[in-house]
Amino acid sequence: MKVLVPKKSLADTLAHVERIVPTRSSNPGLSLVRLDLGDGAVEITGSNMDIDIRARFPADVRGSESRAVTAHLFAQVVRVLPAEDVELEFGESELHIASGNYTTKLQLVSAASAPKLSFPNTHSGQIDAASLGRTLSSVKYAAAVADYQAVFRGVKLELKDGKTRAVATDGFRLAYYDLDLSTGLAADLIVPARSVDELVKVLGDGDVKLALSEGQLSVEHGDYALNLKLMDGVFPDYERVIPQAFPVSISLSAPRLAEAVSRVALMADKSANNRVDLFIKDGVLTITAEGSFGRSQEEIAVSQEGTDSEIALAYNAKYLMDALGPVGGEVRLSFSGSSSSPSVVTDLADASYLAMVVPLRTG
Amino acid sequence: MKVLVPKKSLADTLAHVERIVPTRSSNPGLSLVRLDLGDGAVEITGSNMDIDIRARFPADVRGSESRAVTAHLFAQVVRVLPAEDVELEFGESELHIASGNYTTKLQLVSAASAPKLSFPNTHSGQIDAASLGRTLSSVKYAAAVADYQAVFRGVKLELKDGKTRAVATDGFRLAYYDLDLSTGLAADLIVPARSVDELVKVLGDGDVKLALSEGQLSVEHGDYALNLKLMDGVFPDYERVIPQAFPVSISLSAPRLAEAVSRVALMADKSANNRVDLFIKDGVLTITAEGSFGRSQEEIAVSQEGTDSEIALAYNAKYLMDALGPVGGEVRLSFSGSSSSPSVVTDLADASYLAMVVPLRTG
Repeated sequence: MKVLVPKKSLADTLAHVERIVPTRSSNPGLSLVRLDLGDGAVEITGSNMDIDIRARFPADVRGSESRAVTAHLFAQVVRVLPAEDVELEFGESELHIASGNYTTKLQLVSAASAPKLSFPNTHSGQIDAASLGRTLSSVKYAAAVADYQAVFRGVKLELKDGKTRAVATDGFRLAYYDLDLSTGLAADLIVPARSVDELVKVLGDGDVKLALSEGQLSVEHGDYALNLKLMDGVFPDYERVIPQAFPVSISLSAPRLAEAVSRVALMADKSANNRVDLFIKDGVLTITAEGSFGRSQEEIAVSQEGTDSEIALAYNAKYLMDALGPVGGEVRLSFSGSSSSPSVVTDLADASYLAMVVPLRTG
Repeated sequence: MKVLVPKKSLADTLAHVERIVPTRSSNPGLSLVRLDLGDGAVEITGSNMDIDIRARFPADVRGSESRAVTAHLFAQVVRVLPAEDVELEFGESELHIASGNYTTKLQLVSAASAPKLSFPNTHSGQIDAASLGRTLSSVKYAAAVADYQAVFRGVKLELKDGKTRAVATDGFRLAYYDLDLSTGLAADLIVPARSVDELVKVLGDGDVKLALSEGQLSVEHGDYALNLKLMDGVFPDYERVIPQAFPVSISLSAPRLAEAVSRVALMADKSANNRVDLFIKDGVLTITAEGSFGRSQEEIAVSQEGTDSEIALAYNAKYLMDALGPVGGEVRLSFSGSSSSPSVVTDLADASYLAMVVPLRTG
């Protein structure tokens, strides 16, 4: 069979699927994408075992066809096609791709060679896509990247009546975001942080439909369907470590603070936790760092509460900057006291966000 | 002493010097830049043994000072300074850098710790900078990158009466560019290709002054002075291998051809020389490539000379695209015959450029 499709639709759709397909795998089926044509649409599916994804775009399809093709080479070819339209013709063992004066024949295999994926047809939960995206993006940085207990590399979703919370922690810092919206589901889930990235990338406008099944969260949104494998394990009981009383707190522009920390931290020794020191007195925040090549310092006027106390604490500069990342305007930093008790970062314009950073122990 | 300088002047000047300073070296002096202040200017010098560079910018300097500082950290700090002006104050063992509310103290060492560099005051040659830049940039790609005889990793400059030619070859392809301008010098030089890159980056408008001394070409241009160490060795006698007679030649748009070759080559096996086949008949160029996943093809109408012959040749796609790179408009490809005789690429709008590519042996 033969179908004519816009290059842009094919390229954009394929890009979302290709991104998750592993470049190398001991399972050759995983390097394939499956193409399903029929019902006025082209569907492309792929998997990396942690995430299954199905993406579709409308096309003038007559008849039906299901085959599989090597994902990355197919995507590379489609990206550079010379004309705006592409003709796909399914032969016995070859996919003929024609665009402008260019033609290619790409090896086709049976659809059964690709991973067998199934996406639910019914969904019991639903939530605004942009809100879910903001919730997940605000906390994802706090998950561990490697060398940690598995649950630290995940983002926990707490779904309960009227509320959706995402939380991530690596044991040294934590972030949560409380959404005042219900998904209609009630469950605690841990989604791998890498899968969260992929989910966020497909979230646009409108609603997301959600379905829970054994070990899996399924998401349907517009032209995309994803299955996200869930993580086992017990997420730490984090709420009890978030301090509630703060002798001193300061407010200032988050981007201004992040920029100053990044500038001062250039002098810090990367091998010594990338340490920056914060000193607060009389409405002035002084940030310093010292390393083998010298010392740097920057001062910022801040609005201070609890003016009778001074604060001197040290942080990993990266952790501090990460915690400021989701805050676009004014931020409050609240200090719970001694050098080992956590500090809390909140967004003055959005009470949903809270981050906690544990200061470095100093001498 | 203290001096106030514009951040932009300091950052831009430092960037040119820092770029050549090695990040790691067994010689700790090489990681330094030397700062010389005096005579209404700040001078920054650095070296990587192959290239010495001195760059300067005007500044309101009273008195004089010569010291050295670690190159990369200094450059990192300067790039992110918050205000438009920077105050540099030279202390006993520290350089105080102040900008806006930010200050830093960076370790200073004696100027004698930095490499001892000398740049000539008198120059016997001279040439237009933009023309020299175009000459060098047009051929540099053809130099070998590694695993070859040393001279193949250099660009040869043939300076003689009324003419300046740059030529590079790795044994499989060659490029030269003939400039109808004299430098006033007469010599054959081989400059390491990496040094050619750095020289090209500082070439702007106006003239370049040249001086030759034992094993070294010195260049002065505007605010920059460079010493380029020359390579020893005998450059191959390349002129005798450039064919003079061509049974068939074609003309077409170089960017159009390069794009088609790159698109078709996606199917080529990278392990088999990235082979693309060119077939020319009756004014049509057909480009094909075949690999383990399939076969691709593109046709382009060309203006053909020598219409009674067909041409079927194979090339490394990268070599072909590289040779087309310097040609912005129409290009002529001239074929000298059998599969092992070189093909020649010329720029229809600029007779100065010639590239030669040896086809792959087939069958």
